[in-house]
Amino acid sequence: MKFFDNGDALTEARGFFCSGVHCDVKGKRDGKLDLGIIYSKKPCSVAGVFTTNDVRAAPVRYCEALIKDEKFACHAIIANSGNANACTGRQGELDTKKMASEVARHFNIHSKEVLVCSTGRIGEPLPMSRITAGIRDAADDIIKEYDGAAAFQEAILTSDTCTKSCSVRIKASSGEITIGGVVKGAGMIEPNMATMLSFLTTDISASNHELQSILAIAVNQSFNRITIDGDMSTNDSVLMMANGNSGIELKNESKKFQDAFAHGVETICAALAKKCVSDGEKVTKFIKLKVDGAETEEGAQKVARCIANSLLVKTSWYGSDPNWGRIIDAAGYAKVGMDFAKVDLNYNEVPALKKGEPIVGNKSRWKEIVSGKNFTITLNLNQGKGTGEIWTNDLSEEYVNFNKSE
Amino acid sequence: MKFFDNGDALTEARGFFCSGVHCDVKGKRDGKLDLGIIYSKKPCSVAGVFTTNDVRAAPVRYCEALIKDEKFACHAIIANSGNANACTGRQGELDTKKMASEVARHFNIHSKEVLVCSTGRIGEPLPMSRITAGIRDAADDIIKEYDGAAAFQEAILTSDTCTKSCSVRIKASSGEITIGGVVKGAGMIEPNMATMLSFLTTDISASNHELQSILAIAVNQSFNRITIDGDMSTNDSVLMMANGNSGIELKNESKKFQDAFAHGVETICAALAKKCVSDGEKVTKFIKLKVDGAETEEGAQKVARCIANSLLVKTSWYGSDPNWGRIIDAAGYAKVGMDFAKVDLNYNEVPALKKGEPIVGNKSRWKEIVSGKNFTITLNLNQGKGTGEIWTNDLSEEYVNFNKSE
Repeated sequence: MKFFDNGDALTEARGFFCSGVHCDVKGKRDGKLDLGIIYSKKPCSVAGVFTTNDVRAAPVRYCEALIKDEKFACHAIIANSGNANACTGRQGELDTKKMASEVARHFNIHSKEVLVCSTGRIGEPLPMSRITAGIRDAADDIIKEYDGAAAFQEAILTSDTCTKSCSVRIKASSGEITIGGVVKGAGMIEPNMATMLSFLTTDISASNHELQSILAIAVNQSFNRITIDGDMSTNDSVLMMANGNSGIELKNESKKFQDAFAHGVETICAALAKKCVSDGEKVTKFIKLKVDGAETEEGAQKVARCIANSLLVKTSWYGSDPNWGRIIDAAGYAKVGMDFAKVDLNYNEVPALKKGEPIVGNKSRWKEIVSGKNFTITLNLNQGKGTGEIWTNDLSEEYVNFNKSE
Repeated sequence: MKFFDNGDALTEARGFFCSGVHCDVKGKRDGKLDLGIIYSKKPCSVAGVFTTNDVRAAPVRYCEALIKDEKFACHAIIANSGNANACTGRQGELDTKKMASEVARHFNIHSKEVLVCSTGRIGEPLPMSRITAGIRDAADDIIKEYDGAAAFQEAILTSDTCTKSCSVRIKASSGEITIGGVVKGAGMIEPNMATMLSFLTTDISASNHELQSILAIAVNQSFNRITIDGDMSTNDSVLMMANGNSGIELKNESKKFQDAFAHGVETICAALAKKCVSDGEKVTKFIKLKVDGAETEEGAQKVARCIANSLLVKTSWYGSDPNWGRIIDAAGYAKVGMDFAKVDLNYNEVPALKKGEPIVGNKSRWKEIVSGKNFTITLNLNQGKGTGEIWTNDLSEEYVNFNKSE
């Protein structure tokens, strides 16, 4: 497997076309690209994983319903930033359908072959006349075969500071397949994903069912491990399209190749999830938090989340303060029956606590590690075999300043 | 019932003495009062409510164990700030006992008649020689009958900006009783209390059992309703002492008086809890958050906590942005089955959402309300009869700056 960081990820798999245009979703006339299309001439099988928030935006509910049909095939995804089309009632549903039908009209396909994603502010109706004009422009760029992979990546960003993409190539019995992925994230990144849209394209041929089981596992090991501010959004979606343009069929390949393909999808999701955390709003550090030795897997995850979401822990990381007391306190209110006298804690490979006793001689080394931009904290409860892992970041004053109004 | 805000609350009930001294717990030589004693010549019955964090500090475990004994009576509470004596292993337990025995020695009482509380940084051993000297000074002040109520209140503060106290007087069949209370809070205030110490004194005569049931209910309606940053501490304790000096026995009074007494304890706990939130670290606003119409009480509380702990909601309040979208999003990830199309949301008495439809005409009025320092948000899920209430605050850049190191 070859891994490629950044680049035109979504169009690297054969037969996919992308575009991104400015249609002024926010009415700010700032020229920001804010609407994009992914398109494949060959119909694609599809997998999707969505937010579990009680309040799911209209486009999320729309996609969920389509994907439930095992025979569902799709040609295009339309996505806009700047407005989430969430909490927009009946009008929101009509607008989602209208976006799909407008795309379908330009490509001469059925509107039920188009998926729709939105991200941005909650509770405001979409400016449909501008959206419609944007769809016309974006479809036009694809019909003219403009190279719009980079533009699409830009168009889905909200408060992200950069585009985030990667791809892999995997050799098959004859030839090779490509998987590409992009993500937009920033604030509201939590447990089961985020104000996060992620799109994957691949030129393998596989059934919806095959894709779905591979994607679900990959998302669980990646996007479901990240937390920036503990907020889970109304719009989080990960969508994967497979058009078969490589001529390689997943089910006809060796077990080894099948595993490599699943691993490729996981690799992409993990890389994108990490990029997401590192590009969290006003973030200065990336922290991998491992919890071992809990009685259950669930308990380990709960402890990891309590630590990762503690404001006192996050602000101490921001201040490069290796405050293990705050970490232990946060672990304690997960209430999984932790016994402090059994606990080991490491900063990278340097022990800070051993069976609840601080290794004070190492203090200067903890401090040095936490002053870095990237470190791992391992907490072992020594009570069982449950493990959990969360990827997170610090909390800066700039985060608060940035989010105090929209 | 007469309510008195602030003042020498703990010594207003007859027969209680207080002191507060500087013994330099933190080794900073800043002169801050950091150790205090509450003392009653007559032995007191006692009630206590403690943090449910898995990691409870040595003094918390010590007090819990003593109070379990139904016949437990106490003369004194010793409390220090600057060091929580949490995560300090066997040494922490010995130090707690030593604090109790030092107090006992000065007053010629049994060490098991002394309760111990600590608050401050986690994971460092207490500086026992300085603590011992402080206990001598603090006991001496009480023996000399210095008026140390204000000094005690100062001595328990950590990052609080002010002392917080109140008292009530209630008429009985003959004479009256007094209840006084103080609290220290600031950061780490969450669900089941906080790095929060609260002390109540009263001159009524009542059994441990009677006091405990009254205090437990009062704490549930007050301290357990507050959240500042979602962090629950290792040291949270609420202790109440009753010395009987009024000559009035709770069980001999009318039902009406008994209810008034319980109401008095609740009034004090509620007033102190609100003071705590308003004095949260670098807080600029106090918000009462009411959730009505959930299917269960538990569900309503869960929704209220998700909203109150959302960084995106808290930062929007700080920015005076009535961002109902973020509120709904946070309510949605409580996952209690909320249906947005049924939801009503009010800022004070002004409707913002009615059955999921924004009342856009009121927008300028929401903005005005959220610009204030004190407002109520009511969310009605219209699904059942469960209600919940949380008192909380905003999140400022100064909070992050303040907490980035200790």
